[in-house]
Amino acid sequence: MSDVRLFAVEGIPRVEPGSDLAALLLDALRAQGESLVDGDIVVICQKVVSKSEGRTVRYGDIRPSPLAVTIAAEGGDKDARIVEVVLRQTKRIVKMDRGHLIVETGPGWVCANAGVDESNGLSPDSVILLPEDPDASARLLRDRLRESSGAVVAVVITDTFGRAWREGLLDIALGAAGIEPLLDLRGQQDLNGRDLHHTVIAQADALAATAGLLMRKGDGLPVVIVRGHRFAPSDAGGVALVRAKENDLFR
Amino acid sequence: MSDVRLFAVEGIPRVEPGSDLAALLLDALRAQGESLVDGDIVVICQKVVSKSEGRTVRYGDIRPSPLAVTIAAEGGDKDARIVEVVLRQTKRIVKMDRGHLIVETGPGWVCANAGVDESNGLSPDSVILLPEDPDASARLLRDRLRESSGAVVAVVITDTFGRAWREGLLDIALGAAGIEPLLDLRGQQDLNGRDLHHTVIAQADALAATAGLLMRKGDGLPVVIVRGHRFAPSDAGGVALVRAKENDLFR
Repeated sequence: MSDVRLFAVEGIPRVEPGSDLAALLLDALRAQGESLVDGDIVVICQKVVSKSEGRTVRYGDIRPSPLAVTIAAEGGDKDARIVEVVLRQTKRIVKMDRGHLIVETGPGWVCANAGVDESNGLSPDSVILLPEDPDASARLLRDRLRESSGAVVAVVITDTFGRAWREGLLDIALGAAGIEPLLDLRGQQDLNGRDLHHTVIAQADALAATAGLLMRKGDGLPVVIVRGHRFAPSDAGGVALVRAKENDLFR
Repeated sequence: MSDVRLFAVEGIPRVEPGSDLAALLLDALRAQGESLVDGDIVVICQKVVSKSEGRTVRYGDIRPSPLAVTIAAEGGDKDARIVEVVLRQTKRIVKMDRGHLIVETGPGWVCANAGVDESNGLSPDSVILLPEDPDASARLLRDRLRESSGAVVAVVITDTFGRAWREGLLDIALGAAGIEPLLDLRGQQDLNGRDLHHTVIAQADALAATAGLLMRKGDGLPVVIVRGHRFAPSDAGGVALVRAKENDLFR
């Protein structure tokens, strides 16, 4: 079994709306003496994808609703205008308690504050939204990287989510292209020949988690390359990692 | 920033009660031309730790309680005797629905079936329990590896857990020694000089997740070495990743 190697791509400049992520990434790789090879998994932080797509909001002029004002007051130091941005991204409030706002957004992501991000914005009074369709963003970046570099790679777009029951955040896969998001081991047998019948591994989330450790969003390291991990290609996307509400015991 | 490398340790023989895990691991590493170096993180599957500690139960003679019989009947193909073993490991039933039994066990782990594992047992009629104290198990293995190899390493003991809201399982850190389980980035600043005030990363879980992708429990690959990841030493342990019930919005 071969080794898996992870390394951060250094020197990617600040991303602005309209930035060509593929070009920025390939230039930065070249500058560090690297290039993409077939089978690489390009793990990229949602922030820079959203910024390149112009998914930012200046909240200075937003008038918060009474609900946003209430939530902000309960949250202590929250800005009601940002809470209003969060509510406009929200499809369902999953939990609103002790100053926390856990909601369902996008295709069913359950996360704090609808993934609206106050840090690393374009300006101090702007926030970053999640990409509209991270799987489409991942496919586009994958295709552009292939056009420019010739390498057949996978792309995983990550965000940092909290969990139920456990402390600490983990990076998860919002979007994915070119890699099976779920690794289905059902049908394989254990050491006693018994079926491993419940084992479907969240492959794209697992890769996002460790890659996230190498990212330093504040230091401009938003991309990590995973090399040597063998995987089956698929465009099922990060949406396959979202549990449908009717199958979810905790929503 | 240096690379992180992950590789599975091949050729570890089947573990039995009383097996010397450190010796088995170091022998297997030697056979593949590797040795431990300072800063390695030894990620090891809970199953082999539990087996070496004799944490297995033969359920053939167990008489199930009425509750176990009811749960087994609702679960379809479940064995009431195994459900009884699960209930004896259970401190609180978090959710019992649609044939699933999500419980709280050990120091507060929320997982399916109290982590009782039917696969890869010592015999077809035995199941594997979680280690009694995985942090103690991790510290012991870390110490033995140091005595035998001279290398100062960290140890993470993993299990495969389901999650709320998301499809697929992820390996998480049950026990840890020699590494900060939580990576506290609070106080660091983002690109705009704004505090990253909510960012505490579940470092040990993140490492467990990707290492789990390289494990093949059915093929006897229960250990993965993570090399090159920089971390602060700590014996806070995997217990630090368990959210206290009073801080948990979802229990």
